[in-house]
Amino acid sequence: MSKQLHLNAFLMSTGHHEASWRLPESDPFANTSVEHYQKLAQLAERGLFDSIFFADSPVLFGDVGRRPAGSLEPTVLLTAIAAVTSRIGLIATASTTYNEPYNLARRFASVDHVSGGRAGWNVVTTAGPEAALNFNLSDQPSHAERYERAAEFLEVAYQLWDSWQDDAAVADKSEGVWAVQERVVPIDHSGRHFQVRGPLNLPRSPQGHPLIVQAGSSEDGKGLAARYAEAVFTAQQTLEDAQDFYQDLKGRAVALGRDPSTIKILPGIVPVIGSTVEEAQRLEHQLDSLIRPEYARLQLARTLRVSPEDLPLDQQLPADLPDEDEIEGAKSRYTLIVTLARRENLTVRELIGRLGGGRGHRTFTGTPEQVADAIQHWFEAGAADGFNVMPPVLPSGLTTFVDEVIPILQARGLFRTSYTGTTLRDHYGLPRPAGRTPSLQEATA
Amino acid sequence: MSKQLHLNAFLMSTGHHEASWRLPESDPFANTSVEHYQKLAQLAERGLFDSIFFADSPVLFGDVGRRPAGSLEPTVLLTAIAAVTSRIGLIATASTTYNEPYNLARRFASVDHVSGGRAGWNVVTTAGPEAALNFNLSDQPSHAERYERAAEFLEVAYQLWDSWQDDAAVADKSEGVWAVQERVVPIDHSGRHFQVRGPLNLPRSPQGHPLIVQAGSSEDGKGLAARYAEAVFTAQQTLEDAQDFYQDLKGRAVALGRDPSTIKILPGIVPVIGSTVEEAQRLEHQLDSLIRPEYARLQLARTLRVSPEDLPLDQQLPADLPDEDEIEGAKSRYTLIVTLARRENLTVRELIGRLGGGRGHRTFTGTPEQVADAIQHWFEAGAADGFNVMPPVLPSGLTTFVDEVIPILQARGLFRTSYTGTTLRDHYGLPRPAGRTPSLQEATA
Repeated sequence: MSKQLHLNAFLMSTGHHEASWRLPESDPFANTSVEHYQKLAQLAERGLFDSIFFADSPVLFGDVGRRPAGSLEPTVLLTAIAAVTSRIGLIATASTTYNEPYNLARRFASVDHVSGGRAGWNVVTTAGPEAALNFNLSDQPSHAERYERAAEFLEVAYQLWDSWQDDAAVADKSEGVWAVQERVVPIDHSGRHFQVRGPLNLPRSPQGHPLIVQAGSSEDGKGLAARYAEAVFTAQQTLEDAQDFYQDLKGRAVALGRDPSTIKILPGIVPVIGSTVEEAQRLEHQLDSLIRPEYARLQLARTLRVSPEDLPLDQQLPADLPDEDEIEGAKSRYTLIVTLARRENLTVRELIGRLGGGRGHRTFTGTPEQVADAIQHWFEAGAADGFNVMPPVLPSGLTTFVDEVIPILQARGLFRTSYTGTTLRDHYGLPRPAGRTPSLQEATA
Repeated sequence: MSKQLHLNAFLMSTGHHEASWRLPESDPFANTSVEHYQKLAQLAERGLFDSIFFADSPVLFGDVGRRPAGSLEPTVLLTAIAAVTSRIGLIATASTTYNEPYNLARRFASVDHVSGGRAGWNVVTTAGPEAALNFNLSDQPSHAERYERAAEFLEVAYQLWDSWQDDAAVADKSEGVWAVQERVVPIDHSGRHFQVRGPLNLPRSPQGHPLIVQAGSSEDGKGLAARYAEAVFTAQQTLEDAQDFYQDLKGRAVALGRDPSTIKILPGIVPVIGSTVEEAQRLEHQLDSLIRPEYARLQLARTLRVSPEDLPLDQQLPADLPDEDEIEGAKSRYTLIVTLARRENLTVRELIGRLGGGRGHRTFTGTPEQVADAIQHWFEAGAADGFNVMPPVLPSGLTTFVDEVIPILQARGLFRTSYTGTTLRDHYGLPRPAGRTPSLQEATA
């Protein structure tokens, strides 16, 4: 069997295209509909996807006029989905900047228990000053500070997940001993950001640790990913950039002593699919024509840290934008947008169209065969271990992908024809982390 | 129709009796089994209970040897239960001391969305120094400080839940306007404990606000309950104490301008049920005989803030225990235990037996008819609006209650024979809170 692709379905209300909610087929209240997401997850499971995934941020951005805004808390949503699925992995985003490790480690371990070992955590540091204002701060911590906290947060989480040995509970009814006290121990973590005594108030979960996902592509982000991530979602527009990113990140992981096969790299792809190229292009054009540029320009201005008036719709970006180094927010996203606009000499209006489809992720428009070709090409050219599939319209874009693209990938021997494991780690071919080993004292007792 | 009882099912692993897990019928891993809890909730729903409820604390207490320890995070667990039930209310405990209001308000609102309006939040301040050590602190905040924070936490949560008007989203596809910006506004809260800008990143939930539950009976606890609680879980051992508590709390609510019918008071009852009195007593004796007193004494010593050696098993409590005023932990629980022991001249061993059954809640042992009598008596004597039913063994104790006690209460006209509403507020006869009214500016625009 040839090397196998990994596919994640990135689910977002009516789809990743910002105007998707305006299509006649779309439910404009899908963003708070648990049934909508349950059906999408069942559809992705029918397609044998490795996992589904939800983005998240603990803040509401300003333009609720523009598109469906607000969303169900992702660990709650995943749990509702766990109840109606049996195999597909369940990945939620949560912030290390605006959570406490004890609470979050327990919540992800709980989802792992409830789902029978299908939980994954996309670790984010939450860019932008807006979220900070919801958490007693007047501005966000610096980029470096957020990433330092994230690393310590993860170290604490690992210790908490391992604070129970797998065999801690013995449930000896006759002796009246439920667990062996020596197998459940405090972690006594004391670091710069956190002092956490532990142990966790939950036995070790089916996967040991939920799968760790990371999606930042700044220097700090790549550093965090190389050390901790087991899957990486990334936005790459060209094959060459994707190959460079792939090599860079695998190399960083190897330099830290990791086996490069234990970090799976999945670029985003927004597949706009039609039965002919013309049909696909018509769908893309229909969607782009539904974007209201005045809203989109506001968001672009916020990302670029300029005033909307500095972005006339039919001119290119101003020449004097800040350097990435000056950005304390989403650094890699900033650079990606500026690079895209400059490389292709896009006007603000054109840039808005490109971003409206996939927010900087690669949009690919074509037939199912062409989409499969595009996926295979990057996969075989060392640019990807799989893809983060971002349907522009939901559910129809996912239905088409499952019914028309997946069978082609299967026929080419690139993608599974049935699930072979039961946990998210199984699907990604990643080992279950060994827990804490018994203490010498106990081992010799 | 006569006044109707409200019944909540307080679910805890294999049951409220601490030795219940040692019975042959019990699954000793029930504490992390989502299927176990899903079945219990379905059983309670078959019995037409108003709600189910989970206690919680963000800490693991030391004696994992004693009984099943560790539990699934309650909002995750409720969500898994929401997926397999359709009517019963879903109440989870969460701490205002060790959470941030933005995150927690959103999580409960998410459960309310996912469950179609069935979420309730038992607001606790988390007594004891142990939890503090998991959250960067060296000791817990003082009792008064915790309650002050709780009140501000609730005020912030209310504002966040109301930061979206019910009619904010208009979903005008043709104009490309999803929501009216003026109907989704920041809260700009700035208080002693919290600065929160808002708005919430989630539209207003089906109930407007999740039902607010409170369970502390200290002076501060009663103050918080009188102001905010819509249901109160309380531990009362005698009819007189229960009547006094009921009068006191309703009076405090009235003094704050509330309608006393909008605060439902539910004392706990641990029903040990047999088809004859002798059979019920045999079950009680069997359970008590399975308690290992050396474990139980450790916990009692911790609650009383004395050394275990100061509590010889066959002597009464020492005379020189601290006053409630000196206790920074669970004040009302401390007083309840000391009062119980002194009133009935219990030895430590006898006290442990009493607490092992219901941790200070009233244990009632008898036939289904006698249990129904006990419930009716307190209900009609002005001591309760309903009961927090705490089966000593699960699922069997709940099955017996549903199949044998509920029909008697129904035949007496005291309890519903079908659900008449769909939300948790409907079941408790409580109104849906009005949201923020449109601003004058918008109303006249």
